[in-house]
Amino acid sequence: MSKPTCIALPKISFERGFLADRARLVRDVVIPYQWEALNDRVSGAERSGTVHNFQVAAGEKPGEFYGLWFQDSDLAKWLEAASFSLATHPDAKLEADLDGIIATIAKAQQPDGYLDTYVQLTAPDKRWTNLFEWHELYIAGHFIEAGVAHFEATGKRTLLDVICKLADMICRVFGLGKDQINGYPGHQEIELALIKLARVTGENRYVQQAAYFINQRGAEPSYYEAEVKRLGREKLPVYFYHNRWSYLQAGKPVRDEADPIGHSVRMVYQLSAMADLVRETGDESLRSACKTVWRNLCDYHYYVTGAIGSEWNGEQFSGRYDLPNDRAYAESCAGIGLVFFARRMLDLELKGEYGDVMERTLLNNVLAGMALDGKTFFYVNPLEVRPAEAKRRFDQHYVKTQRVPWFGCACCPPNIARTLASLGYYTHSVQPDGLAVHLYTDCSLETAIGGSKLKLAMGTDYPWDGKVTITVDPATATNFSLRLRIPGWCTAPTVSVNATAVDIAANNVNGYLQLTREWVAGDVVTMDLPMPVQRVRAHPHVIHDIGCVALQRGPLIFCVEQVDNGDQLGLLRLPKSAELKPRFAADLLGGTVILEGPAERLQPANDELYSRDEPGVIPAKIKAIPYSLWNNRGEGEMRVWIRES
Amino acid sequence: MSKPTCIALPKISFERGFLADRARLVRDVVIPYQWEALNDRVSGAERSGTVHNFQVAAGEKPGEFYGLWFQDSDLAKWLEAASFSLATHPDAKLEADLDGIIATIAKAQQPDGYLDTYVQLTAPDKRWTNLFEWHELYIAGHFIEAGVAHFEATGKRTLLDVICKLADMICRVFGLGKDQINGYPGHQEIELALIKLARVTGENRYVQQAAYFINQRGAEPSYYEAEVKRLGREKLPVYFYHNRWSYLQAGKPVRDEADPIGHSVRMVYQLSAMADLVRETGDESLRSACKTVWRNLCDYHYYVTGAIGSEWNGEQFSGRYDLPNDRAYAESCAGIGLVFFARRMLDLELKGEYGDVMERTLLNNVLAGMALDGKTFFYVNPLEVRPAEAKRRFDQHYVKTQRVPWFGCACCPPNIARTLASLGYYTHSVQPDGLAVHLYTDCSLETAIGGSKLKLAMGTDYPWDGKVTITVDPATATNFSLRLRIPGWCTAPTVSVNATAVDIAANNVNGYLQLTREWVAGDVVTMDLPMPVQRVRAHPHVIHDIGCVALQRGPLIFCVEQVDNGDQLGLLRLPKSAELKPRFAADLLGGTVILEGPAERLQPANDELYSRDEPGVIPAKIKAIPYSLWNNRGEGEMRVWIRES
Repeated sequence: MSKPTCIALPKISFERGFLADRARLVRDVVIPYQWEALNDRVSGAERSGTVHNFQVAAGEKPGEFYGLWFQDSDLAKWLEAASFSLATHPDAKLEADLDGIIATIAKAQQPDGYLDTYVQLTAPDKRWTNLFEWHELYIAGHFIEAGVAHFEATGKRTLLDVICKLADMICRVFGLGKDQINGYPGHQEIELALIKLARVTGENRYVQQAAYFINQRGAEPSYYEAEVKRLGREKLPVYFYHNRWSYLQAGKPVRDEADPIGHSVRMVYQLSAMADLVRETGDESLRSACKTVWRNLCDYHYYVTGAIGSEWNGEQFSGRYDLPNDRAYAESCAGIGLVFFARRMLDLELKGEYGDVMERTLLNNVLAGMALDGKTFFYVNPLEVRPAEAKRRFDQHYVKTQRVPWFGCACCPPNIARTLASLGYYTHSVQPDGLAVHLYTDCSLETAIGGSKLKLAMGTDYPWDGKVTITVDPATATNFSLRLRIPGWCTAPTVSVNATAVDIAANNVNGYLQLTREWVAGDVVTMDLPMPVQRVRAHPHVIHDIGCVALQRGPLIFCVEQVDNGDQLGLLRLPKSAELKPRFAADLLGGTVILEGPAERLQPANDELYSRDEPGVIPAKIKAIPYSLWNNRGEGEMRVWIRES
Repeated sequence: MSKPTCIALPKISFERGFLADRARLVRDVVIPYQWEALNDRVSGAERSGTVHNFQVAAGEKPGEFYGLWFQDSDLAKWLEAASFSLATHPDAKLEADLDGIIATIAKAQQPDGYLDTYVQLTAPDKRWTNLFEWHELYIAGHFIEAGVAHFEATGKRTLLDVICKLADMICRVFGLGKDQINGYPGHQEIELALIKLARVTGENRYVQQAAYFINQRGAEPSYYEAEVKRLGREKLPVYFYHNRWSYLQAGKPVRDEADPIGHSVRMVYQLSAMADLVRETGDESLRSACKTVWRNLCDYHYYVTGAIGSEWNGEQFSGRYDLPNDRAYAESCAGIGLVFFARRMLDLELKGEYGDVMERTLLNNVLAGMALDGKTFFYVNPLEVRPAEAKRRFDQHYVKTQRVPWFGCACCPPNIARTLASLGYYTHSVQPDGLAVHLYTDCSLETAIGGSKLKLAMGTDYPWDGKVTITVDPATATNFSLRLRIPGWCTAPTVSVNATAVDIAANNVNGYLQLTREWVAGDVVTMDLPMPVQRVRAHPHVIHDIGCVALQRGPLIFCVEQVDNGDQLGLLRLPKSAELKPRFAADLLGGTVILEGPAERLQPANDELYSRDEPGVIPAKIKAIPYSLWNNRGEGEMRVWIRES
């Protein structure tokens, strides 16, 4: 099991706690709800048209294509999410729905393997002619991921056969051969999907095809320059702005780009594939590229909530330290892609930093994308929202002041669903010589280490509390390493095994505490990861955060909302001496830790727009809630970075 | 002379000082330079095409229309500027250039009076069909202003005849009559122009036509809704965004709008016409509307530099207190329009506040629009520029990091020229019973008060120094009121007449010191308007300015530039206790007062993007220059609002 599949831990169960609640929500509400949305049966939501398009392409009904050119991918992501759910929670009704739509998809697929309802229904003679803009390979990637997940979850080959045929066609069509198209996708995604397909089928040629796509990217002469010339489209859409092909990471070969650049989702999907390829091929120059971009992403392009992508136009990365809060794009999908990348870097090298980023992004940015009832979603996740400005100013027109039921471009909701439906992939890694724990959450799992069966239970109220009890239960006494991530935010962890303290410093390997011993049934590891309230400060070159602090407790970033703190949150100041105390509020937002304490508020000195008078200061109180839970109590201002006085 | 004309003081001369230098620059450099630009003879500048279009329309050369649909207005504004210049500084070469182009314009005019080269050359059968977008009436307004100025300056009727014919045609075509178009301009301008024309011709029907345009504006049923329906253009361009007809101040009747709204230049041109109409007609409801919008503009929508319009999209006003510095639009033309409005409010009621706004906007926002060499211009005048971000971020794509020689949309450069070429209109008002001084600057003038000749000389180094000496020299002893504005920024003014101190409080009428007496030759008024360095604070609801101060001395707002203070100006902090000292730097920027003193700088605590460490603070120095003089030493960061510690 050295090559991970997409369902790392089919026998894992999350019954209670912060992440489990979300995973259950996905299972009970989000997946059924999104199935209704994809079938255009949710009143008040934007039309999806996705299932409709496949039914039309399959000849099951008359009609025309509806939606955007990447609409198909919404269905693929949902199929993947539903398959993940089936892997851990069998559900006959859901499985039947999947069987039905997979049959439709198979009928829609063309005899040679091609599958893309947008092209099939609107421009059937234009296959592969507009790689820079259309999303044929992106959609193929999502169907491949779905097919792999469906096969792994159910053992059925129905969708796997469809996607193998599709992948085989793509392998025939794309490459450096004389009769092949030597292009590559405008939106990366298929690369990481092909590697999953290789892992599940054992067919290395899919890895080779993924490597081709990555290695050809940005090669000279530019495939895209030739393509847009052929299309008469040399003047690119405004979202390319001044980046031109670097907008889609094809301005240079992938190994030559030091900073993340361009469309943020494409960037992190590409990086995920690059990390996968390193694992498959041992390509050292690609490993080095992954590490360089990782470093610069974390050091210059990363919001404190774990979000990435600070420019609306083109959903892009901006320059170093350019991280505005009210105009953050911070797309949910980009956060998800960063979680993918971080998780794959952990497959290359167990290092606390990768787990830290994965945790920060998942628990703050990604979870904020979904309401507590699982029925509304954010696409964009700014760190400061003032609804009046966001609604009025065009340069914030993309900021939604409340989550919405669906989007015309609905990439994010099913992406959140498939991520949470495969939570076990992110919480643990099974290794040849042991098991690594990346994320702490109450759960129990069964797996095998070196051929020996192992049960493991993790009891914790994390992220509300830092105490974690791990009960290790191997079928027979087994020597293996249990590797526990020591979170970067934690300054004073303590760990004991069977009540004997562990020397953390001596056993800390790159941020993971390595406990290697012969484990026997009943061994208990107890961890204490104390969670004082921390004030986080941004590097002062982030001009938007100067003079402000973000509040963090454990892995959670907190924010203040108008409903708790009044409006004009910019006037709220936290004195340096003010002590904030955490309290678990069982009746708030499904139960959450909140931070409370004294603060102060600036008061206008007078009614004049400009005057020589200093504003007054009055005592106030502050109440902060986890960022991911904001906007579950109606529209209002929100702010992560709070002025410090 | 109770009705002001556009050249209030033909016999005024500005020989030395801050404003005189700019006025001379306009005369010696800007007007000749812009003539070259309008003739497409400036290499490196964007093509204008303006003179070309008239030559083609006049049949003097073959060719096609070039440029935007309001290109004609650039020529009209230049003609007006050149005429103003001729009024005070006769120049045979310039007058001949004017005669030549006026002959071309007359030839281009159609027999019925119509004049608009865009429509004539591109859509001759579409006259007046697209009032919401095309600028036929706007252009007519600018030609009318030019014709009035040309007549007043030279006594020639050549252009006046053209514009009377044009105005008469417009009076025939537009109105509530059965056979008339009951529409009104998409871009206000003709209203104030028609009032000037009425004043110079004595024809009250032009006032009536202006009143029609103002009163019909926003009336139900909407003329524009019907027009766009007819054009099949119900989906308006994105710059209308959610304002729809309020974008051009036609969502409601003009008396029903309390805050400035929509396109800022249109708003202030409209307000200028409204104030003029009050003076002509005594319309009390219109007076009240002017005062209401004035109040709200000053209290909620006004940058400390005197700029207005904080949204790029549609060049619009935003909401109350929404005054971002780096994304300010703050168009030069909008500032000029506000100067027009303020000046007209002074015609209605002598009140210090109107003069204060006029001074602040003219000396800071408007003057910043032009380089010290008169050859490059800003259209947009933000209060904070970080060139790297401005060049990278699409939501700042309109911010130029250096002034440019010309614009495809070149409304601003000739607007600055015509304003500075008629400086005497803004510095003084001649009244039936006296003379009011609004702006202090070294000058001498000749006029008549109640039939009696008066010479007046004002000696001052203002705005570098607050001492002003006014020598009053009536031909015979005359009883009249000299009204001197006591600037709002000045907290301790002193004034004496012939060395006898005046009780300012007792003689202060709405911010103007009223000196009523029998003036005899040799009377001398001395004023001292002390100019300590002031720290100005914005109302804390302006979120972008919280914790910051702007530096003001006299009427000038200062800024810090990278060239003097290093980069990362956001890290510069001014301790509350730090004393800033003014110094006249004769060799800097043509001679300017600068402010210098101790400051401090934030230092990164470490290289991490986020950490728990507080940034360090090191001592630094600060050097501030007048905002209007920024960007005359190459590209670099600039900031008006400086953090206070």
